[in-house]
Amino acid sequence: MPEQDWKAQCAARKQRQLEQIPKEWTITPPPDTQRNVLDVPRTCGLLTARELEITDTVNVDILLDKLRTGQWSSVEVTTAFYKRAIIAQQLTNCLTEIFIERALARAKEVDDYLQAHGEPMGPLHGLPISLKDQFCIKGLETIMGYAGWIGRVADRDSVLVEILYECGAVPFVRTNVPQTLMWGETHNHVFGRTTNPYNRYMTPGGSSGGEGALVALRGSPLGVGTDIGGSIRIPSAFCGLYGLRPSYNRLPYCGAVNSQEGQESISSVLGPMTNSLAGVRAFTKAVIDAKPWRKDPVCVRKEWSEREYALGEHGGQGGKMCFAVMWDNGVVKPHPPVKRAMELTKAALEAAGHTVINWENHRHLEIYTVGERIFAADDALDLRKDCELSGEPLMQTMSPTTDAHEHALDEPMQVTIVGERKHLSAYELWELHKEKRALRKSHLDHWEATVSRTGTGRPVDAIISPVAAYASCPHGCNSYVPPPSLFRCLQRDAERHGRARAGRGRRDYFYTSFCNFLDYTAHVFPATFAHKSLDGRAPPHEFYNREDEAVYKLCEPLFPVVCSEVMGMLTGCFRYVDDPELWHGMPVGLQLIGRTHEEEGVIGMTEVLDEALKKYKQSRGLR
Amino acid sequence: MPEQDWKAQCAARKQRQLEQIPKEWTITPPPDTQRNVLDVPRTCGLLTARELEITDTVNVDILLDKLRTGQWSSVEVTTAFYKRAIIAQQLTNCLTEIFIERALARAKEVDDYLQAHGEPMGPLHGLPISLKDQFCIKGLETIMGYAGWIGRVADRDSVLVEILYECGAVPFVRTNVPQTLMWGETHNHVFGRTTNPYNRYMTPGGSSGGEGALVALRGSPLGVGTDIGGSIRIPSAFCGLYGLRPSYNRLPYCGAVNSQEGQESISSVLGPMTNSLAGVRAFTKAVIDAKPWRKDPVCVRKEWSEREYALGEHGGQGGKMCFAVMWDNGVVKPHPPVKRAMELTKAALEAAGHTVINWENHRHLEIYTVGERIFAADDALDLRKDCELSGEPLMQTMSPTTDAHEHALDEPMQVTIVGERKHLSAYELWELHKEKRALRKSHLDHWEATVSRTGTGRPVDAIISPVAAYASCPHGCNSYVPPPSLFRCLQRDAERHGRARAGRGRRDYFYTSFCNFLDYTAHVFPATFAHKSLDGRAPPHEFYNREDEAVYKLCEPLFPVVCSEVMGMLTGCFRYVDDPELWHGMPVGLQLIGRTHEEEGVIGMTEVLDEALKKYKQSRGLR
Repeated sequence: MPEQDWKAQCAARKQRQLEQIPKEWTITPPPDTQRNVLDVPRTCGLLTARELEITDTVNVDILLDKLRTGQWSSVEVTTAFYKRAIIAQQLTNCLTEIFIERALARAKEVDDYLQAHGEPMGPLHGLPISLKDQFCIKGLETIMGYAGWIGRVADRDSVLVEILYECGAVPFVRTNVPQTLMWGETHNHVFGRTTNPYNRYMTPGGSSGGEGALVALRGSPLGVGTDIGGSIRIPSAFCGLYGLRPSYNRLPYCGAVNSQEGQESISSVLGPMTNSLAGVRAFTKAVIDAKPWRKDPVCVRKEWSEREYALGEHGGQGGKMCFAVMWDNGVVKPHPPVKRAMELTKAALEAAGHTVINWENHRHLEIYTVGERIFAADDALDLRKDCELSGEPLMQTMSPTTDAHEHALDEPMQVTIVGERKHLSAYELWELHKEKRALRKSHLDHWEATVSRTGTGRPVDAIISPVAAYASCPHGCNSYVPPPSLFRCLQRDAERHGRARAGRGRRDYFYTSFCNFLDYTAHVFPATFAHKSLDGRAPPHEFYNREDEAVYKLCEPLFPVVCSEVMGMLTGCFRYVDDPELWHGMPVGLQLIGRTHEEEGVIGMTEVLDEALKKYKQSRGLR
Repeated sequence: MPEQDWKAQCAARKQRQLEQIPKEWTITPPPDTQRNVLDVPRTCGLLTARELEITDTVNVDILLDKLRTGQWSSVEVTTAFYKRAIIAQQLTNCLTEIFIERALARAKEVDDYLQAHGEPMGPLHGLPISLKDQFCIKGLETIMGYAGWIGRVADRDSVLVEILYECGAVPFVRTNVPQTLMWGETHNHVFGRTTNPYNRYMTPGGSSGGEGALVALRGSPLGVGTDIGGSIRIPSAFCGLYGLRPSYNRLPYCGAVNSQEGQESISSVLGPMTNSLAGVRAFTKAVIDAKPWRKDPVCVRKEWSEREYALGEHGGQGGKMCFAVMWDNGVVKPHPPVKRAMELTKAALEAAGHTVINWENHRHLEIYTVGERIFAADDALDLRKDCELSGEPLMQTMSPTTDAHEHALDEPMQVTIVGERKHLSAYELWELHKEKRALRKSHLDHWEATVSRTGTGRPVDAIISPVAAYASCPHGCNSYVPPPSLFRCLQRDAERHGRARAGRGRRDYFYTSFCNFLDYTAHVFPATFAHKSLDGRAPPHEFYNREDEAVYKLCEPLFPVVCSEVMGMLTGCFRYVDDPELWHGMPVGLQLIGRTHEEEGVIGMTEVLDEALKKYKQSRGLR
């Protein structure tokens, strides 16, 4: 397809999206130069006091209680969140599919059910839920960030959507993703770029970045993302949310679209992203209680365990636990705010009577390397095919600038690691699987062996680790991701066009993708906020590698970014130079990492940690 | 390696095996022409009355009770079974590793533990357990049927062995397999051919055929096999045993060797093979209760569920269930004894108050086809590499004759299905995964939809199906398996050597491999015995395909087989021509098929079925 065609198709599709927004729900947007837009929903005048009350109710249990008792109808709750979601869209460009009428009709159906039966339809009765742009809904397009997928209307609900309906929920909006899904940022040719509402110069992360921005703005009480390398956890951390990366096949992925769909070596998983821990538990329990294995053939037949949730495997409720902090994975050193968040968490856990020891890294870079090789096994054929459908190019960068950042790398570690461009054979892939299994066994034994250091009679109950080395970062800086096998092609292409470098930035899944590889359950929690005076500049250290150097220099006070485009639907030119406060106020999330299929225990442990952290911060007047 | 070298190595290894047998345990073997050798352990004079009492105790619960209460010591029980195993070896050539001293030392350790602590070491206290030649034991070779693996000494126990030790069990012998493991028979260049003790002209099946023959002769109270296409179920059915094929990763495979080790598209699983249902339950529960996920990173963290075992998902104990019989999969029609076994089972279930309906086949051959393509994805590179280690040839047939059987096929369906020889790329394998997932979803929906026909309010509780179209068969007739991608090479090779055909027989996994593909839990139970007067010749039918025709003609009374070699360690020339009684007295096993991760429920349902069947047969004087 000629370039003008796919561009025109994207523009037309974007226009149709715009037309889905009722005129009366449009707001006068703040100037593009306004970075933090979190307050706009409260100040823009569109939401009534009651709508603000509803949407500011972050505790999902309270929302569910009001809904199931009929104090709030689903129609009014869905309307309130829809309006706020549309505000969020105008601020951060976080949405894809908008279907107000349909969602409100569903909400009415749920209300009618309560009226007729005198009991709720299910455990998620009336709750509006937003979905990443992978979860097909019958009759709606599923575009997933590809121009060539425009017009691809689903003829069947994905299994998750079927189950949400059974549970009484109201799927009400779908959210933006990066092209290919394989980025830690969120930008594509169809719907454009999503920004971080804490600071629109920054990325909300990705690939579930639409959910991140939307939920942070309270445009949805609960969203569903997916994670194959960090895609739930990075946006959860960058946007100040709780987010759960469950184990493979604990929750039903069947019928959702995906990148590299037949790739089963490291599986993508779905999980909740929300402003309250109650939301994580309510969603996860409801979906498991619906016995998803009735509908998804690969779903694990494992019922929700109240015993495990009550920490039955971790000393029981009120028992003393032992956590291990991964201060530094030895690949990239965390920025000062992240380090402080871990110190705060450690202190809070100790104040609550738990033990905190240091995690000893175990073959971290080897794990990353085998994982990257698996993702590159098809030489990006899957991604290229989806681009070829329309002729749109495979994105080379998520940077809004044409030129590379100062601290971009000529060749990110990801590319070095994977080596020569090559489409692997089935046998070569099997050889990688052998390496993978050996590494998983080795890491499991390493974890089990911590029993000698914990004092609890058990191995370490959970690991506390960064989600990324920093608390968000400017657009284009979090990740370089065109699959490494394409890197050298793109490099040649860039040279032909007179640009110095193809890849910009790094792929920064160093703190997340090992959980996908090892299939460890991981729960992100907001720990604190970056603070210009509390978080000084990090002292220089001997860099582990050039990646580490680039991450370190990212927080140099003179980090320059020239933006000619920030959001898909907004134009403007930003420049932040000499900005020592770039990170000030950004949320810092960490993750609590447990074992495979340990969702209940991990949620239970995160609740204990979260309470300890809140109490500790409160007692010291910290945020 | 020159041919004489690998042959000499094999002969030397076989000789070393022979030397492991104490002189005083050798028996005067019956003549090669004696087909049924089941009675020899009782008549050969080697076993004392007490040893016969011990080894004839097929109910594993009774054995465990005697062991844990000290009525029988582990040393005497292990000695008794070891002697009987050595008799079995001399009759059917079923063993690989023999390590009497080591096993007895372990038995003594267990006895001493009971004496010292006054309580058993674990749930399998003192029980001798035989293992297929894949489960590494530290310090012993794991040869797995490859000449090139001779001398490969394990430096670590496999996880299953570690757990068996924890449970108090006594791993005491390892058992024979076919070269590559990918056959429904049991023969390799190192240890030779294993025969069926019910009729040594027949195959015990494979690939866990060593276990099949050993356990049928009561040379082991419980064996562990593995199953990737039917390898537990085929020998269980052919040898009259109970055998369980659990779901992927329910039991710990980690640390066991395997063919195509990195192949994760359709996973091999391990499971028990035994003469009593009690054995299946005791083993499965003990291993799961040991929390194998502590040691095997891919093991499902799902505890043993007494609720599911008590049929909590199937109407509760004593409730009415609905079974569906797969009378004929539409690919190959079962022989008369198999049909009669199903009729018997149906009548018994109905007599016990359950409903039995017909299973409607669903995309059976498509499932088989995608499965075969997956197994052939590496163009047999993995198998070829293991043969190349020594220079031994990849076996072309398991037939003991040099010429093809009368009813062999020029090109088995397996070969036709897979098509042109080709090593797939990673992307092509991913495409097959997509087909696989779609088929699994489709089959699950098909099963769920039976709810409209059962009358129980649930979908069909389980499927009853044949394990193979026949009750065992002569050596070389059950399977052609050099991977189809090699077939045409072998064909050319055969022609060069003046033989008409390369492949002989068929690969008959048509009734088993769909469970591996769909990951359904399947439990084999002995249903009846073939009988010359009860099972007449099948009436002719319009053949589904040439495979079906060959299976039909297999039971023609003039089926000729010329055997120049039957067992690896025996010589002799057999001829069975004009033998209308070939199948008379062979056990007929069927399988009960439940859902993924439904081990507890499937064991519970098989217990109900088994009791009903025994009662029904007893009331009518049937076997």
